[in-house]
Amino acid sequence: MASYLRRWPHASRSVTLPPHLRMRAVDLIRKKRDSGENSREEIDFLVSGYTRGDIPDYQMAAWLMAAWIRGMSRSELAALTEVMLYSGEVLNLSDLPGKKVDKHSTGGVGDKTSLILAPMVAAGGLIVPMISGRGLGHTGGTLDKLEAIPGFNVHLSLDQFRGTLRECGMGLIGQTAEIAPADKKIYALRDVTSTVENIGLICASIMSKKLAEGIDCLVLDVKTGSGAFMKREEDAVRLAEVMVETGKRMGKKVVALITDMDQPLGRAAGHSTEVIECIDVLNGRGPADLRELSIELSAWMFYLGERSKSVDEGRRLAETMIASGQAKEKFKQGIKLQGGDERVVDEPHLLPTARFHLDVVSENSGYITGTNCEQFGIALAVLGGGREKREDTIDHGVGLEFRKRIGDRVEKGEPLATIHYNSGTKLAEAKNLIAASYLIGAQAPTEQRALVRRILGA
Amino acid sequence: MASYLRRWPHASRSVTLPPHLRMRAVDLIRKKRDSGENSREEIDFLVSGYTRGDIPDYQMAAWLMAAWIRGMSRSELAALTEVMLYSGEVLNLSDLPGKKVDKHSTGGVGDKTSLILAPMVAAGGLIVPMISGRGLGHTGGTLDKLEAIPGFNVHLSLDQFRGTLRECGMGLIGQTAEIAPADKKIYALRDVTSTVENIGLICASIMSKKLAEGIDCLVLDVKTGSGAFMKREEDAVRLAEVMVETGKRMGKKVVALITDMDQPLGRAAGHSTEVIECIDVLNGRGPADLRELSIELSAWMFYLGERSKSVDEGRRLAETMIASGQAKEKFKQGIKLQGGDERVVDEPHLLPTARFHLDVVSENSGYITGTNCEQFGIALAVLGGGREKREDTIDHGVGLEFRKRIGDRVEKGEPLATIHYNSGTKLAEAKNLIAASYLIGAQAPTEQRALVRRILGA
Repeated sequence: MASYLRRWPHASRSVTLPPHLRMRAVDLIRKKRDSGENSREEIDFLVSGYTRGDIPDYQMAAWLMAAWIRGMSRSELAALTEVMLYSGEVLNLSDLPGKKVDKHSTGGVGDKTSLILAPMVAAGGLIVPMISGRGLGHTGGTLDKLEAIPGFNVHLSLDQFRGTLRECGMGLIGQTAEIAPADKKIYALRDVTSTVENIGLICASIMSKKLAEGIDCLVLDVKTGSGAFMKREEDAVRLAEVMVETGKRMGKKVVALITDMDQPLGRAAGHSTEVIECIDVLNGRGPADLRELSIELSAWMFYLGERSKSVDEGRRLAETMIASGQAKEKFKQGIKLQGGDERVVDEPHLLPTARFHLDVVSENSGYITGTNCEQFGIALAVLGGGREKREDTIDHGVGLEFRKRIGDRVEKGEPLATIHYNSGTKLAEAKNLIAASYLIGAQAPTEQRALVRRILGA
Repeated sequence: MASYLRRWPHASRSVTLPPHLRMRAVDLIRKKRDSGENSREEIDFLVSGYTRGDIPDYQMAAWLMAAWIRGMSRSELAALTEVMLYSGEVLNLSDLPGKKVDKHSTGGVGDKTSLILAPMVAAGGLIVPMISGRGLGHTGGTLDKLEAIPGFNVHLSLDQFRGTLRECGMGLIGQTAEIAPADKKIYALRDVTSTVENIGLICASIMSKKLAEGIDCLVLDVKTGSGAFMKREEDAVRLAEVMVETGKRMGKKVVALITDMDQPLGRAAGHSTEVIECIDVLNGRGPADLRELSIELSAWMFYLGERSKSVDEGRRLAETMIASGQAKEKFKQGIKLQGGDERVVDEPHLLPTARFHLDVVSENSGYITGTNCEQFGIALAVLGGGREKREDTIDHGVGLEFRKRIGDRVEKGEPLATIHYNSGTKLAEAKNLIAASYLIGAQAPTEQRALVRRILGA
């Protein structure tokens, strides 16, 4: 039943294989299936062959499932990341003055810091070349949020991107065809073969794209909690460790912050509403948690990018960028350079809004002890403010406003959240999801919640 | 990152899924990936969908790899077998008088009993509807051996097959498009995704094809040893148990013999040479081990098919069929009905032969303590008498003649085997493989070797 070629090498020392038989996808799949380790050369053969179209989807799918279940060694992971990275163009931004630094978040609900960090850190003198993604499932995406701004174009060519970076120090675009095409193709396949949620594969996917930006430093915001991809802190830590190690192995300065996603970040989820909340922060206002995390992340970006001698000095620099209005002006400049209507920064009513709103009220009195945060994201998607499938379009106007946070007292009949919606079709469904996602108890939670739980790689 | 739909059912009791979302391949793959159990309905959805072309290769490949690594429960296996069986036509032979009985072997080197059993058991009054396979890798295939007989047509339609069975009680064909098409498609995919060697998948593949023959009883010859698919006896026993259980669950009488494949069966491997060895057995001659196993297997076929009251009576009936010449005459009749030249039975020189021969001599003196039996099959394939890829053609004339068996004394320079070949291109390679596959020691092995090691399901 088994093809005999794979056994040939073990048959006898005197038997040599003809060169075209030296590497075959089935043998590499089998090795991974049997918990073996694929060499760098083998991973290159698989991934490059798949990207070129020489290796079919079904063989890559089988390898991905084997890798998902059996796991990957550190050296397999490094090889996979490198092969994916060099499957496309790697930006060389060395002609631009200053360090290039980016932040990547593993995603959550209301996680909007990129829109604050890019202008804040660019205003502080570093180059921020952000290649971001779209939302899928319960998580939002930076590109979608930016597209709430009328005219904003995330589809710059790499040349245009470079021009934007040169002019204002920040740029926010989507993954172009030139950037890590292997990742693009493999990610699409993982999505339909249930091989997404694996630390090694996630790490390779993220790091290959981020390193293609030509950055010197990277701050990772690894979310953990009920609204995060990694529900358990230990998984978030493992992912963070692996990403930090992979980045460092490739000569980058990398640090990872493990941050809380047991409830939404800030008060808003939805596209226009999140842009507005970011503008609030750039104006020195906005919810405390969002402000705090934005300051923390940019402080690390300043520190890694050698713009400050310490993280603490980085914090002060970040605060100065807000207080002086420089961050806000940088945001306007960045929007304008990418074709967007920069007036939204001063006149947020120019952003698309929802026509109706509805309060979700509490059925009990007590204290908010936790949230099933992911369900908020699902509720938003149900309302049209998220994607079920990649090709779905998004209603940028709909949104959720969270009125209660963990630890807050709530009375029966008091609003927990407000839904901003355009169509009543799935309103009841969204409302039920939200109501069921607030966990209410008789006692206030005693545990003190830290927004930044751990820092790795520092 | 994860699609949210899969989490929807857990979100809230009040949320109901629209019907078209109730089953999705990705969810069933994920369940198997996470060591869950797929329901009968889910396996039907996957396998029927794949057979129709609604589910793509890459999703089936991912599911197969997950099933390979995680294993399948007995009920998953029963469901898979049934769905594959009913993906095509199931023969109804109830209009033919007498029990329908078949034998299936898991394959090995020199394993040629089908050509002896079919005429022997048909001569004894049972119907033997054999749907067989081709050789691949180190194992030979019944269809290929039959095609060594000039004119023999293994591509009968099911109607022609039925006619042949009615006329002479035996028929030997290949898997038609109507028989278990799901198995055909899945097997081809397993072959290129390294998901072949798994007991559950093997069992479902074998049993779905065998049960489509419309048989009442099945004797399984599960090989174990260095030339078998299952090298370790415990694996052979596990496969046998699973197949016996699956067959019984589906209302068939099934027994499994675990038999030795630590060395080739008989003295010949190759197509014409194996046909000749079978004719020898039908003439009351031939190697003792091949004769013994043929008698054993047909005895069980007679017993399960209620042609004898005991296995022992079955043995005597089998011996009578040979001694009386009835088995041999039945073979001629069967060959003729399938378009073959039945004169080969009396005049074996009409079979294709090889032009040259070469002895492989021993480099040491001592006793044969074992063989790396699989390598003999590979050597035969190297000479053109086997397939590396499914589409390769076979040279029916080439063959190996084994001159020494385990326990035999051999002197330095004495022939171990004789190669019958047509082209010298890869002769040295084949010779080296064969020489290296005889294990020679100073002491004769003390262990007494049993040909039939265990019987299961009796």
